[in-house]
Amino acid sequence: MKLNDNFNNLNNSYLFSTIARKVTEYQKHNPEKRIIKLGIGDVTLPLCESVINAMRNSLNEMSEAATFRGYAPEQGYEFLRSAVQKYYTKYSVQLELNEIFISDGAKSDLANILDLFDADNTVLIPDPVYPVYVDTNIMNGRKIIYMDANRNNGFLPLPDYTVHADIIYLCSPNNPTGALYNKEQLKMWVDYALECDAVILFDAAYESFISSENFPHSIYEIAEAYKCAIEFCSLSKTAGFTGVRCGYTIVPNCTHLNNMWLRRQTTKFNGVSYMVQRGAQAVFSESGQQEIQLMIEYYKNNAKIISSALDSMGIYYTGGVNSPYIWMQCPYEMDSWKFFDYMLDQANVVGTPGDGFGKNGKKHFRLTAFGNSEDTIEAINRIKSSI
Amino acid sequence: MKLNDNFNNLNNSYLFSTIARKVTEYQKHNPEKRIIKLGIGDVTLPLCESVINAMRNSLNEMSEAATFRGYAPEQGYEFLRSAVQKYYTKYSVQLELNEIFISDGAKSDLANILDLFDADNTVLIPDPVYPVYVDTNIMNGRKIIYMDANRNNGFLPLPDYTVHADIIYLCSPNNPTGALYNKEQLKMWVDYALECDAVILFDAAYESFISSENFPHSIYEIAEAYKCAIEFCSLSKTAGFTGVRCGYTIVPNCTHLNNMWLRRQTTKFNGVSYMVQRGAQAVFSESGQQEIQLMIEYYKNNAKIISSALDSMGIYYTGGVNSPYIWMQCPYEMDSWKFFDYMLDQANVVGTPGDGFGKNGKKHFRLTAFGNSEDTIEAINRIKSSI
Repeated sequence: MKLNDNFNNLNNSYLFSTIARKVTEYQKHNPEKRIIKLGIGDVTLPLCESVINAMRNSLNEMSEAATFRGYAPEQGYEFLRSAVQKYYTKYSVQLELNEIFISDGAKSDLANILDLFDADNTVLIPDPVYPVYVDTNIMNGRKIIYMDANRNNGFLPLPDYTVHADIIYLCSPNNPTGALYNKEQLKMWVDYALECDAVILFDAAYESFISSENFPHSIYEIAEAYKCAIEFCSLSKTAGFTGVRCGYTIVPNCTHLNNMWLRRQTTKFNGVSYMVQRGAQAVFSESGQQEIQLMIEYYKNNAKIISSALDSMGIYYTGGVNSPYIWMQCPYEMDSWKFFDYMLDQANVVGTPGDGFGKNGKKHFRLTAFGNSEDTIEAINRIKSSI
Repeated sequence: MKLNDNFNNLNNSYLFSTIARKVTEYQKHNPEKRIIKLGIGDVTLPLCESVINAMRNSLNEMSEAATFRGYAPEQGYEFLRSAVQKYYTKYSVQLELNEIFISDGAKSDLANILDLFDADNTVLIPDPVYPVYVDTNIMNGRKIIYMDANRNNGFLPLPDYTVHADIIYLCSPNNPTGALYNKEQLKMWVDYALECDAVILFDAAYESFISSENFPHSIYEIAEAYKCAIEFCSLSKTAGFTGVRCGYTIVPNCTHLNNMWLRRQTTKFNGVSYMVQRGAQAVFSESGQQEIQLMIEYYKNNAKIISSALDSMGIYYTGGVNSPYIWMQCPYEMDSWKFFDYMLDQANVVGTPGDGFGKNGKKHFRLTAFGNSEDTIEAINRIKSSI
């Protein structure tokens, strides 16, 4: 039996597992130190009341034969797909119900969508980048071209027509840089994709953090994107669902991809937990929207605390507005893993070394706004006095 | 951009979607008819008390900042993996914790495990078979060899050393036939796999229905299987989790596959919902085991109702003991889709046409024991008076 040799081309371990291991090691040798984690983008606020209530009710249903639910539709219950459909109209995007697929999170679908494409496609990926885009394509043996995101372009690369791409990854608001494309810039990408006959895999996991006007929440706010883009969204950051697991993926009807994705999902997936889907539905209710808005404001306030501190220290960064991420330049030209170790040791603060996101991250460091406010303030004070 | 052309080699739609469409159509034209579904293997009893209580408690935790949980380990929480580990000792199987991976169901993992193997492998699949094994390999363009399961071998094919295989699918108790390998027969498969340097993908989703002595619940009851087999199990049928979504996959350490699967899961999956994992843990508690045993007995009683009726009609079948499935020969040499339509129309009973499971199913029909008892009795009476 032959193994998939492409796995040999992967780094030894996944970025966040490496960080977790380093932190565990440090804590083991320094049990008295209180480590503050502003590294992995994990939320800290509890689920909001509407979500808890909806899930509690669904548990009652599951405990009675008359209301018990077995297998769900693989593409998600209509009650949740309708809620997503309605949510999109806020941004003047009209979707058909069958274009909406409920997932157990954007990570799974961003990875699994690659089942639809031949291994012989050229993939265009920004650098720095969420490692999942890279690793999943390496596992399939696809050719990857990186596009540089750096200080020169404000970490927002634009299309280069001398390069041909088949599959294009965009993430806006960006992970890890927090940078955000405006409508004109996104339109340039859509035009380029149509010219190349490429597909855009648009990661909108952080769209709910956008509050400035004139920045698209969905790539379908550019009308032509409907012909060439798949959009991935998640309730992980929007509603604190990192441990609950629910997201949604939009695959427009006007491509073959919709049918293929339906076939993929009905064959290789069995739908999302009923209770989770009821919880997700509640996120889109009126009360749910109000409650999650308070959570988002809370995190955005943390982002402001961090970015203001960096401002006062004169450190360059992107993000921090319309985004839960702050992407800072490491001080003293320090290497990012060196800065990671330095921060862990000197400030007992965990961030994410930019190097883990690509070569353009070698001198950068990602901080997240998902901690609690007290910890964020303390972390910032510790950082200030360490550098 | 090039699509994955292997999708063109798939049947137009997934078996159970086709059935669902036919039933919806019939119901639309015959709204007054009460259809009884003994088709798809979906459970009908509500979740047991221990599971409901555990999930309710976990919801309380998720509603408070102090006890809230974000991202879970991709391979599952240790509390659940420990519970699975302990469960296996019942069958004298000793597993390391890192060999146990929590999944959102056996279907996902049975499909996703193929990421670890090269497309250039020969796959040996019994016919009739759960369609997921076939379709997922077609999507990857792998060569498939079918092994005939039929009346001659009691629907339990054994190794043929003149055939070389790299990946071997076994399911025992079998879906769709309900047939069950004994220890000696499974050992023949393990010996053959070792001889071929093949991997066995062992689907144990129905193991909890085994009550007869001397039939293995786990393939690891054959010691050498540890070197060549991956086992997939699910709480869907064991504890009524079809709509809850939780299973577990065993990938032994002594192969490269354990590391590869960990890398696959940490990269392409983000773990199972915390509440679901707490519910699953409760299944393995003392009270949980007692409660699910009652559910299993209930379904097994349905199986007995069906099989006794077939006995009285002199119809050949397999399964019905140690299995929730009854695999019957269609009467009057009828074709299975014809019998499906006939049953839907004349008895308003939905079963699964054997043809959907492969060529050896063309004259067979699968009934499941997962209905409620009253419906099962009524369905059997209707079937009796229609044929």
